[in-house]
Amino acid sequence: MPHFGDSLIQETYKKNSVLVVGLDPIVEFFPKFLWNGKKTKDLTLQDRCNAIYTFNTLVIDAISDHAVAVKPQLAYFELYGSKGIEVLEQTIAYAKSKNLLVINDGKRGDIDSTATAYASAYLRHSPLAGDAITVNPFMGSDGIHPFIQAANEEQRGLFLLLKTSNPSSEEIQNLTLIDQCLLYEQLAKNFSTLATHTEGTSGYSFIGAVVGATYPEQARNLRKQLKNMIFLVPGFGKQGADAQNLRHFFNEDGNGAIISSSRAILYSYVDNRKDWEWLSIEEMRKIIQNNAEQSRHVINSIRV
Amino acid sequence: MPHFGDSLIQETYKKNSVLVVGLDPIVEFFPKFLWNGKKTKDLTLQDRCNAIYTFNTLVIDAISDHAVAVKPQLAYFELYGSKGIEVLEQTIAYAKSKNLLVINDGKRGDIDSTATAYASAYLRHSPLAGDAITVNPFMGSDGIHPFIQAANEEQRGLFLLLKTSNPSSEEIQNLTLIDQCLLYEQLAKNFSTLATHTEGTSGYSFIGAVVGATYPEQARNLRKQLKNMIFLVPGFGKQGADAQNLRHFFNEDGNGAIISSSRAILYSYVDNRKDWEWLSIEEMRKIIQNNAEQSRHVINSIRV
Repeated sequence: MPHFGDSLIQETYKKNSVLVVGLDPIVEFFPKFLWNGKKTKDLTLQDRCNAIYTFNTLVIDAISDHAVAVKPQLAYFELYGSKGIEVLEQTIAYAKSKNLLVINDGKRGDIDSTATAYASAYLRHSPLAGDAITVNPFMGSDGIHPFIQAANEEQRGLFLLLKTSNPSSEEIQNLTLIDQCLLYEQLAKNFSTLATHTEGTSGYSFIGAVVGATYPEQARNLRKQLKNMIFLVPGFGKQGADAQNLRHFFNEDGNGAIISSSRAILYSYVDNRKDWEWLSIEEMRKIIQNNAEQSRHVINSIRV
Repeated sequence: MPHFGDSLIQETYKKNSVLVVGLDPIVEFFPKFLWNGKKTKDLTLQDRCNAIYTFNTLVIDAISDHAVAVKPQLAYFELYGSKGIEVLEQTIAYAKSKNLLVINDGKRGDIDSTATAYASAYLRHSPLAGDAITVNPFMGSDGIHPFIQAANEEQRGLFLLLKTSNPSSEEIQNLTLIDQCLLYEQLAKNFSTLATHTEGTSGYSFIGAVVGATYPEQARNLRKQLKNMIFLVPGFGKQGADAQNLRHFFNEDGNGAIISSSRAILYSYVDNRKDWEWLSIEEMRKIIQNNAEQSRHVINSIRV
């Protein structure tokens, strides 16, 4: 099995795409065909889980030529308890069967023994293991090392939260430290140390960082500082980031970032089609496919 | 349904205990009787999940008179995928049936829309909902508000990570800010604002904070600053915190903190009994019960 940094870069070449599609299954945005004629008030938890799986496979089929990875947002599966997690397992398997990488967006983080359990759950031989997981660094390096160790041993990857896409990320991440450095800049130094000597032949580490599309200026500096880390960039599309600004997230060779979009690809019909509840399966697949194709091209146009 | 701060304080009076037992089911520490005669190499994932459920019910039975709450550590359930989460659901239900509060230790945190999904999963009407959840504040207040809103509406609670028990917590949490304040001190100010006007009749908020038992000096100052917040204090026992130092985590009336212990209660036999693999169900129950009783008394002795 190849090094995760290498396999990710290889996929971006193979598909000529750096697009990641976030899987945020939100049943309130599901057209009626997914409910098999049942009324909303009659839906059981199992009905919702069945619909989520159908939705996910439909999305995966629609985007598999245009995206390198899917990023299941774990919260939307945990919402349905064990039945939801069963759908997550099936979704991960389906995405892998369609040659998509799977980045579990769980933002896990804990003390070392617990982090070891999370790392096993998402990066070793478990029903939920994908190719990479997002990790919250708030508890420091002893909570990060178990993920690095598992990723290294299993040829998988992790993305450490560095500068997140949401407006209030600045409350902690932008605090000014006594040496005038901002907190996320200090974090970048820590991450740079962690990622030393973890590169594959592509020059990229299996340890990446999450840098929100909504913060292009910060990304410009982080990009210079963390040349060997792949940025997972959420917030493109619905969260309002401008495509032009995405260029700051890439190295000069057009590599080094994968751009994640969720709602702008999955649910554009909710804003654009008054009759969206009555969409057919074919119409919906076509819309999602077009959105993915268009996003891929827009992103590629600024990479070069 | 009462306010979570009130129901927690009420339970501590009713049971004369502030002990929380962490449920970290680690199958490597399970005596042989939990395997029903099967050899380790023949165990299926379902066998492990069955053993974990039996173990959890045994622990809950043993500690229910001495603890106010159990704290399932979600990583150890996620490790087994949907089957593990099914055991978590059953464990939560069993703990509730034994009049124990349930604090899901998931350290979740994300942007607002995702945090809303996590908050629904753990604090509203979902299969995984307990009485409270631990929340990671790294992404700022827009990722915390959905938990506060759900907790407020559903009369449940949350515990925000403030100063965690692990050695490397200092790498981020103890960074010195430009105004000489440490990061966790700044966080405490933010939390204090969030918890304003959220107290019940007990005087305690439904928003608590996680402060590790391993940092008593820091706790002393935080205690003065956050009088209305209940501290969830992990790291007592196995992680090496001294009981005497626990007094810094309580207000003068002996309230304001619940003390969590996991491995020192669950797995003391692994260190103390060479023949631990051959323990009977009754011996094991007795050991765990004694550990919980003793912990409760030690903690109570320093509260007054």
